[in-house]
Amino acid sequence: MLYATGFLAPDPLLFLQLGHQRLMAASDLELGRARRSARVHRVLSWSAYAREIGRQGRRATVARVIQRVLAEHHVTRITVPGSFPLGLARELTRGGVRLLTEAGPFWPQRAVKRVDEVRAIVVALRAAEAGIEAGIAALRTCRVGQDGFLRRAGQRFTAEELRAVVNTAVLARGAVPAHTICACGDQAVDPHEGGHGPLRAHVPIVIDVFPRAEATGYFADITRTVVRGHASDHVRRIYAVVSQALDAALASARPGRSGAAVHARVHEHFERCGFTTGEVRGRMQGFIHGTGHGVGLEIHEAPAISSRQPSQRLRRGQLIALEPGLYYLGVGGVRIEDLAVVTRVGCRRLTRLPRLLEI
Amino acid sequence: MLYATGFLAPDPLLFLQLGHQRLMAASDLELGRARRSARVHRVLSWSAYAREIGRQGRRATVARVIQRVLAEHHVTRITVPGSFPLGLARELTRGGVRLLTEAGPFWPQRAVKRVDEVRAIVVALRAAEAGIEAGIAALRTCRVGQDGFLRRAGQRFTAEELRAVVNTAVLARGAVPAHTICACGDQAVDPHEGGHGPLRAHVPIVIDVFPRAEATGYFADITRTVVRGHASDHVRRIYAVVSQALDAALASARPGRSGAAVHARVHEHFERCGFTTGEVRGRMQGFIHGTGHGVGLEIHEAPAISSRQPSQRLRRGQLIALEPGLYYLGVGGVRIEDLAVVTRVGCRRLTRLPRLLEI
Repeated sequence: MLYATGFLAPDPLLFLQLGHQRLMAASDLELGRARRSARVHRVLSWSAYAREIGRQGRRATVARVIQRVLAEHHVTRITVPGSFPLGLARELTRGGVRLLTEAGPFWPQRAVKRVDEVRAIVVALRAAEAGIEAGIAALRTCRVGQDGFLRRAGQRFTAEELRAVVNTAVLARGAVPAHTICACGDQAVDPHEGGHGPLRAHVPIVIDVFPRAEATGYFADITRTVVRGHASDHVRRIYAVVSQALDAALASARPGRSGAAVHARVHEHFERCGFTTGEVRGRMQGFIHGTGHGVGLEIHEAPAISSRQPSQRLRRGQLIALEPGLYYLGVGGVRIEDLAVVTRVGCRRLTRLPRLLEI
Repeated sequence: MLYATGFLAPDPLLFLQLGHQRLMAASDLELGRARRSARVHRVLSWSAYAREIGRQGRRATVARVIQRVLAEHHVTRITVPGSFPLGLARELTRGGVRLLTEAGPFWPQRAVKRVDEVRAIVVALRAAEAGIEAGIAALRTCRVGQDGFLRRAGQRFTAEELRAVVNTAVLARGAVPAHTICACGDQAVDPHEGGHGPLRAHVPIVIDVFPRAEATGYFADITRTVVRGHASDHVRRIYAVVSQALDAALASARPGRSGAAVHARVHEHFERCGFTTGEVRGRMQGFIHGTGHGVGLEIHEAPAISSRQPSQRLRRGQLIALEPGLYYLGVGGVRIEDLAVVTRVGCRRLTRLPRLLEI
């Protein structure tokens, strides 16, 4: 709905496109703001329809209000997204409306970003970069305790505290962070583990930040992996190989190439460098996730840069996160992630934050 | 899904309840964490089903994986929530699965909170209170400029800066704020306006914070209205009447009474005190929204404390936000909001932050 109308609303809305005519119905509470800022031709008063139904002695359910708007515009058949709620669909069907769904994305053009969308994502990205910079600055102030744990102001410095530092910096830039990952050592081998407890020196810490800009609703995504202290030769080697993998992905992404081909190239690079993927001691290890994904009003959206959907080819203007990583129990995880926009001939990196292992 | 499984996951999951047996299917990436922390009897590997389908030369769509799990458990008929995606429903129907939907909430017991849920909401509430306290402390450091604007460190202090102060304090307590309202003067007459620009002295500022606890996913909700400087007699009168309305709502909410009755009591109080509601100069003014709403895994959930659903009665254990307010152009908005849990005989306030108009 945000994509269709450009209108950030906490309450339910009706959006209706009739040929080129774009209509919206919003509650009286939203009416003024909607008329000022929604990208539609006309904003109807949901509340007025509801009152009319009420005057006829019936409860103004969502389905009844929609049916009345449709009837007024002589519409009996609508195409809705696959995510349309089944319960509401059944009520509308009982009311004589025919609902069509289409396979595939409802707004295929959403994967290709307009200039203002790229700009909104870059605003969120700068906030995310500021967050990682603040986190690295905090890690740099840590001493390495004799027990191998990081200490700050005399206390063990924890993943939770690092996350608070990162998130605070992101928020100060107008983006809302959620589920920021600060995962040290083996915790990072589960890529959805947020990270907890004291942080260790000389061990990789994965920091993955994916905030949403509050003004626009657009996301950004960035990951850096750092070691406070000295990285082992093995970790350094892994870091170099992951960094090369990201460069290979950036060099490989271009219009006409599939996301699956970009993913395959990263996978091959890892295999060729001797970093295999598979189940070891009951846990998947190696390169255990896709190479990337589109980013926009959702943190994960089209196009997929993975083995799924091998027939879909990249298009100019798509905005993608590329995030190769390697994960081994006993070593930890290393993931590096940049954002890029697909151009006419290749892709252009949007992320500015340098890559740096030892801090 | 979070309510059903207790499992916070970024990726799609399948949850299936067969009699008392509760199953979940999750991707391999989630499997370890799901088996440790999901409140289900068994976690199946989504990826294993997907691989099996792939081996048979078919694309492992979500519908096919679900069908396979259902077939394995001899299930041909399932009840799904009204919000179930229509596109997926149609694919399952074509695959021979019968989907039933029920009117009303899918988990009616969700409105009644368990002790651990109340505790999680209180954690989020303490974070929200800390945010408002930080905001008030920042406003207190402001000087009143000769132009009537608040000044801090020689600069005009803005709604955006106040919001950053509030949000940072909330986030430091482990809750994620989004769309925090800091609306000064007439801006607050649109209750969904976030607030922007320089803040004025001697004018009400509505601060409404509704963060989500990151560890649990539960929300809290609190609003305070303050004046930096001196409130006019009219604003003081409005504040007293709104504060009485909140007390009346707290005194009125109890098991067996409808949310609509609580709302009617607040409405009557305002009318009796001479504060009417209606359209003035094309804008709704007065008491322009409902009295309150349930709070839990969503910021607005059952029960409604408004004129909607007059037949639904409050039940012991429901957790509600009560937020009466009055809004007039030329004066601004005054809203005060507390959280309370419905007890055996009445309701118990959970909010601790005192009410204070002039700061």
